[in-house]
Amino acid sequence: MLGKATRESRAEPLDDETLTRVDAWWRAANYLSVGQIYLLDNPLLREPLKAEHIKPRLLGHWGTSPGQNFLYAHLNRAIIERELDMIYIAGPGHGGPSLVSASWLEGTYSEIYSGVGDDEDGMRALFRQFSYPGGIPSHVAPETPGSIHEGGELGYALSHAYGAAFDNPGLTVAAVIGDGEAETGPLATSWHSNKFLHPVTDGTVLPILHLNGYKIANPTVLARIPRSELEALMIGYGHTPYWFEGGFDGEDPMAVHQRFAALLDEVLDHIDTIRRDAHESGDPGRPAWPVIVFKTPKGWTGPREIDGQPIEDTFRSHQVPMADVRGNERYTGLLESWMRSYRPEELFNDDDGRLRAEVARLNPHGGRRMSANPHANGGTLTRDLVVPDFRSHAVDVPTPGASVAEPTRVLGGWLAAIMRANPTNFRIFGPDETASNRLNATVDVAGKTWLAETLPDDDALSPTGRVMEMLSEHQCQGWLEGYLLTGRHGVFNCYEAFVHIIDAMFNQHAKWLKVTRDIPWRVPIPSLNYLLSSHVWRQDHNGFTHQDPGFIDHVVNKKADVIRVYLPPDANTLLSTYDHCLRSRDYVNVVVSGKQPGPQWLTMDEAIAHCSRGIGIWEWASTDGGDGEPDVVLACAGDVPTVETLAAVDLLRQHLPELRVRVVNVVDLMRLQDEHEHPHGLPNAEFDALFTPDKPVVFAYHGYPWLIHRLTYRRTNHRNIHVRGYKEEGTTTTPFDMVMLNELDRFHLVMDVIDRVPGLRARNAGLRQRMSDERLRARQYTREHGKDAPEISEWVWPAARELGVAVPAADDTAADFSAPPPPPPVK
Amino acid sequence: MLGKATRESRAEPLDDETLTRVDAWWRAANYLSVGQIYLLDNPLLREPLKAEHIKPRLLGHWGTSPGQNFLYAHLNRAIIERELDMIYIAGPGHGGPSLVSASWLEGTYSEIYSGVGDDEDGMRALFRQFSYPGGIPSHVAPETPGSIHEGGELGYALSHAYGAAFDNPGLTVAAVIGDGEAETGPLATSWHSNKFLHPVTDGTVLPILHLNGYKIANPTVLARIPRSELEALMIGYGHTPYWFEGGFDGEDPMAVHQRFAALLDEVLDHIDTIRRDAHESGDPGRPAWPVIVFKTPKGWTGPREIDGQPIEDTFRSHQVPMADVRGNERYTGLLESWMRSYRPEELFNDDDGRLRAEVARLNPHGGRRMSANPHANGGTLTRDLVVPDFRSHAVDVPTPGASVAEPTRVLGGWLAAIMRANPTNFRIFGPDETASNRLNATVDVAGKTWLAETLPDDDALSPTGRVMEMLSEHQCQGWLEGYLLTGRHGVFNCYEAFVHIIDAMFNQHAKWLKVTRDIPWRVPIPSLNYLLSSHVWRQDHNGFTHQDPGFIDHVVNKKADVIRVYLPPDANTLLSTYDHCLRSRDYVNVVVSGKQPGPQWLTMDEAIAHCSRGIGIWEWASTDGGDGEPDVVLACAGDVPTVETLAAVDLLRQHLPELRVRVVNVVDLMRLQDEHEHPHGLPNAEFDALFTPDKPVVFAYHGYPWLIHRLTYRRTNHRNIHVRGYKEEGTTTTPFDMVMLNELDRFHLVMDVIDRVPGLRARNAGLRQRMSDERLRARQYTREHGKDAPEISEWVWPAARELGVAVPAADDTAADFSAPPPPPPVK
Repeated sequence: MLGKATRESRAEPLDDETLTRVDAWWRAANYLSVGQIYLLDNPLLREPLKAEHIKPRLLGHWGTSPGQNFLYAHLNRAIIERELDMIYIAGPGHGGPSLVSASWLEGTYSEIYSGVGDDEDGMRALFRQFSYPGGIPSHVAPETPGSIHEGGELGYALSHAYGAAFDNPGLTVAAVIGDGEAETGPLATSWHSNKFLHPVTDGTVLPILHLNGYKIANPTVLARIPRSELEALMIGYGHTPYWFEGGFDGEDPMAVHQRFAALLDEVLDHIDTIRRDAHESGDPGRPAWPVIVFKTPKGWTGPREIDGQPIEDTFRSHQVPMADVRGNERYTGLLESWMRSYRPEELFNDDDGRLRAEVARLNPHGGRRMSANPHANGGTLTRDLVVPDFRSHAVDVPTPGASVAEPTRVLGGWLAAIMRANPTNFRIFGPDETASNRLNATVDVAGKTWLAETLPDDDALSPTGRVMEMLSEHQCQGWLEGYLLTGRHGVFNCYEAFVHIIDAMFNQHAKWLKVTRDIPWRVPIPSLNYLLSSHVWRQDHNGFTHQDPGFIDHVVNKKADVIRVYLPPDANTLLSTYDHCLRSRDYVNVVVSGKQPGPQWLTMDEAIAHCSRGIGIWEWASTDGGDGEPDVVLACAGDVPTVETLAAVDLLRQHLPELRVRVVNVVDLMRLQDEHEHPHGLPNAEFDALFTPDKPVVFAYHGYPWLIHRLTYRRTNHRNIHVRGYKEEGTTTTPFDMVMLNELDRFHLVMDVIDRVPGLRARNAGLRQRMSDERLRARQYTREHGKDAPEISEWVWPAARELGVAVPAADDTAADFSAPPPPPPVK
Repeated sequence: MLGKATRESRAEPLDDETLTRVDAWWRAANYLSVGQIYLLDNPLLREPLKAEHIKPRLLGHWGTSPGQNFLYAHLNRAIIERELDMIYIAGPGHGGPSLVSASWLEGTYSEIYSGVGDDEDGMRALFRQFSYPGGIPSHVAPETPGSIHEGGELGYALSHAYGAAFDNPGLTVAAVIGDGEAETGPLATSWHSNKFLHPVTDGTVLPILHLNGYKIANPTVLARIPRSELEALMIGYGHTPYWFEGGFDGEDPMAVHQRFAALLDEVLDHIDTIRRDAHESGDPGRPAWPVIVFKTPKGWTGPREIDGQPIEDTFRSHQVPMADVRGNERYTGLLESWMRSYRPEELFNDDDGRLRAEVARLNPHGGRRMSANPHANGGTLTRDLVVPDFRSHAVDVPTPGASVAEPTRVLGGWLAAIMRANPTNFRIFGPDETASNRLNATVDVAGKTWLAETLPDDDALSPTGRVMEMLSEHQCQGWLEGYLLTGRHGVFNCYEAFVHIIDAMFNQHAKWLKVTRDIPWRVPIPSLNYLLSSHVWRQDHNGFTHQDPGFIDHVVNKKADVIRVYLPPDANTLLSTYDHCLRSRDYVNVVVSGKQPGPQWLTMDEAIAHCSRGIGIWEWASTDGGDGEPDVVLACAGDVPTVETLAAVDLLRQHLPELRVRVVNVVDLMRLQDEHEHPHGLPNAEFDALFTPDKPVVFAYHGYPWLIHRLTYRRTNHRNIHVRGYKEEGTTTTPFDMVMLNELDRFHLVMDVIDRVPGLRARNAGLRQRMSDERLRARQYTREHGKDAPEISEWVWPAARELGVAVPAADDTAADFSAPPPPPPVK
């Protein structure tokens, strides 16, 4: 394999005409890249450059652009010759000038943005708008035609590329990876994606490691290890490395073109062989796919030296090689000769400034242009999911509390049905937790994707699996983003606490969605759906480190148009919620649901109605008779808080039977917010009707309590809302001890009611103390018996109690993968 | 190199007595590991196991424990023979039973926790407390003696190990890496840490890849690639792999011990050679340090099979191999014979149950026990920083606004002085942004750490550099955590938006600190200090993707005891703030500061007083005469909001000279919170004195506006606090257009005042419209000229204006690494 890796073809595959054309296209792209960074006017250098032609502030990244332009030109040659369907991922996304130049050369830019024509005026507009107030970003961005990959934060180029390639057998994804980006953790592990790609039913990913040596202020690690080490690394990652080195020390570009074209042909032939062999043999094997290590100078073709300091092939060409060109005549001259070195007169028509026809012949046609490939505007290819009726998966709930179910397991059954109905455009992603989160049924459909070695005792691994698991939240998120951005559907299931690992990735995706809303040609894509389970309240043996409900807080900082948060209290509401999420577009849907057996509250019809409202009074649990005059409102959001709230209501009915209690349950958290703040926000009058304008509200919430205040601070009754939630108090303990530690337990809620309803405290000092005693007793029981007292864990809602319903014993095993099937509904 | 990698010594280095002792110690650790998971009582099996001896809920992770016990035993042999100073990082931290067993066997546990003695009663307590209500977590945790590495979230074992090894030349860090953990991004890139470790002035890291093949529900990737590929990967990461495979198919443990002891000797000899050669030659080179690939069965020595299902060496032994042992007599018997297979009678005294003396001879003495090594309780070794007087770095501020400085550059000068004064226990970490964040002076002290190849044109790279840069926020954070946890000091500088990359790591560290506060034997360690720069308001060319001030929101969700957030408005306040941070212990200090030139407000003495208060009225900017009766309070937190607020005050003085305006500036954000919520919280009376009980407050804030509401919602005057902040509206634009987009600009603040002060609006419709016009004009200017209008960017505070102060032109370059030195104060 090393033999192959170090082999370089010496053939010269480009005929003169093609060679000239590739070089011209490259020069044109380089010219446009420089122009975007520096020029306001005089785009074709029709007159000598003057200060007023230069932008007052010079912003952007030159360093990566010429290398990417080179790759783009050569890929275009291959697309035409081989009729490839290819998209391009610009890992070094700071090379915005490069991708914008390419799409302008391909005509796509002017087709989409009529203000930037394909002639001299258009070129002027193209230059002017770049990294300019009111213009376009300096990075590859949603505005960039052909892009599914934002060039802001680094690390996700390969994950996105693989996500795009899954289930797209005809597609080749050229993924350029910067050697700076290659130092990030997410990128470093994403190389292993090749163990999850099927050579027949998935597309091809061609990673190109752009080894140009420098970051902002430092050399890159991979550029400063011996070639033998880097090749070993690529082999260790499971690739066949093809080494290319060119453009140094003034090497003739024509020779570089020939050498690279030969190498690219060899690589694409190798890919063809892999795919054909797998197809013909019926054995996917585990191909050692090619990777190109592309070593070229940073800032290639730019100034070699300025003021005695080397520029090309140093970190000094990372951003803008010359500052203050406007104020320095010598620099102005230097810039002009740099731009003229691309011989623009050979590239653009003398009269109208359009790209010369003979150069434009390097552009593929229509949707085969990488800047116009429909996969890179995934919504255009999205087919609606075939969604089997979730109601057929309903848990039978004869009366509230009369059934027990594991919500995520129920959801899993329905997701499996969706997976069967959508065999090529729906996948589930998770970091080794899909079974632990009890979505096992989805694994049963077609197994878990795996092309590495298998052993006889392995469970459900398959090269064509539809559940994707690798122990990297980054990988799962990146794969799913790539899958969604190319128009398909999916779910990311994750432990709630550890989803913070991808906080920053969520940020970038949410920002992408927000920006695309204002880009008419971007067709909406399926939403990014999270299922967060194994949540903060049930971390019995995993303890404090596994407790963090703050992803919700993180999410609600993003633009309201884009984000949705749901806390379904039981299995039927979870089904109904997820049905909504899977049909939606351009959102990030965060759904938090427990996996442990718990009481079920609503019939399917009730659940649908409740989820449609998103928030509502549970009259069956309330004792205010619906006359709008409760003494207190008990609100709850989240499955465990709902149980504690209802158990508190049970206690209140026993001990304070005269008290008029209203129970409000919240599924859609954004209903709490003002209608002006979020599209789902309840109008004030409706909010007041639920929460009253002036009665005490005791709110049991799944997460950090402050969020409820933040969402409701403009509401009439805000001063009376008292929130119980997670206070960063936890340990290795029982479920009920955990809620007690955070004062979210039934007894404490009763104490809260006594404290807050006017007049109650004075008359119920004894009851308040009994509640306090019950808490102490409950804690003591856990210390003696290692579990919660039966009166706690086996508590049943009164109506169900009357029917003789019993709750099965708590889950006795931590071995989640072997958790038993759900207990049958207890009648 | 491959030759070395695949070589295995065939020598038998253990004499009979040592062999017996190592095996006995291992069996004892395995026995205790099983006992912790399963038993409540009958710890020495003095009677047949019965249901009541078994825990009602079985929780914990068996799979990784026996392998780690094996390693620990062998490392102990080496520590004694070679007099090593060694700590142990348990990457597979779910193996809590293993590390707890080891520390009990070494006597440390009983020394620290008197309730868990070293005899039979102690063993019973040890078993009972494990993963039991009120007991200890099932993971390695702060409670675990000898640990600096929490076993919750995975991915940071190697980064922590390297952080511990830096500047500890006598220390060896054995870092066990789970093959599950090895799939995470942070771990995948952390192998490259070996390019940053000096073989003479730093310690040694010995990575041990624990290749036991399975995660919760899947095989691991690295266990299912060919050995040749894994070895290539290790070579590619720059290591010399030593392959060990043992314990399969019933191999005699005695043979396994001999083989591993021989391999470990070879590895430690190799390390000695590397260090000696480097020392003697004076050339650190870039050593290919050994890595041990340790392939042993998951759940080694556990049940081979249960109910016909294979257990040992499968994913089924990951957690608890047998569920419901209590309810299943056959399982009870199986457990008993499993435990008896370790021959406890040979390991523990018949009478008192103490570890037999001949076995205990494998324990090193005192602080050489890995469970008692002072490096793993880093606070015991912490030396206070030598802190040169920050006041000598003060910016001269003759009158407010009369000087211009780049705050982070000023800070950098002082940090450089600290670095000089503390040459072996202070480092600065950053992902390639230290120069961009203008802390260049720190680079000048001793360069940036780099042991990979260098080229003549490289800038400031040095094997003994004190600034550590790799393009991985995970790596920076992990290194710094390891450095702090072993008692040293440091700063992490990062772009504000991308610090979210380590949200989850921050969570784990903050939880660690919170827990250690209740562990008396854990000595406080230096605080984790962030410097977030290149912040949301100055992302001119980087644009929307680089805008996210939400790390503050994320941080304040953690326990108030542990977290501090500072927003110094200028250079002198930044110096004073950081002086406080660097002297503190056991906190996470988040400091946000811009790097761009900006007006300076306070003299050093004023800055010290202001930072001591954390919040205060700026009387020189106020027009309420200090009589406590302003018409409006303009509050600000953050450098850009402070400028806009003062510019608004300037406008108000011009246009509404009768209006009594009070300016309140907030440095310490936690002062806003209630004193019961945060130790820094202002008492209500003091808050009311600043913000008045009833006057309108217009609050210009650096981040998402909701946070100010969250912090102040209990305050008397909360209903009148109107916050302007970042609303997730941004693009590639000028600084002032950015604040306008988010309505945080001076004109909008004036409009807010007009809208909110009773009676103003009716009488000032014209002024309000002029402000609105000014905004439109300011935006229009940016579109025409590509930069902010001079009356905006060159605005100067009135008092300084009177002195003829001029602000230099805005920074014209994006090439941050080459940014000029700060302009001199303008007199």
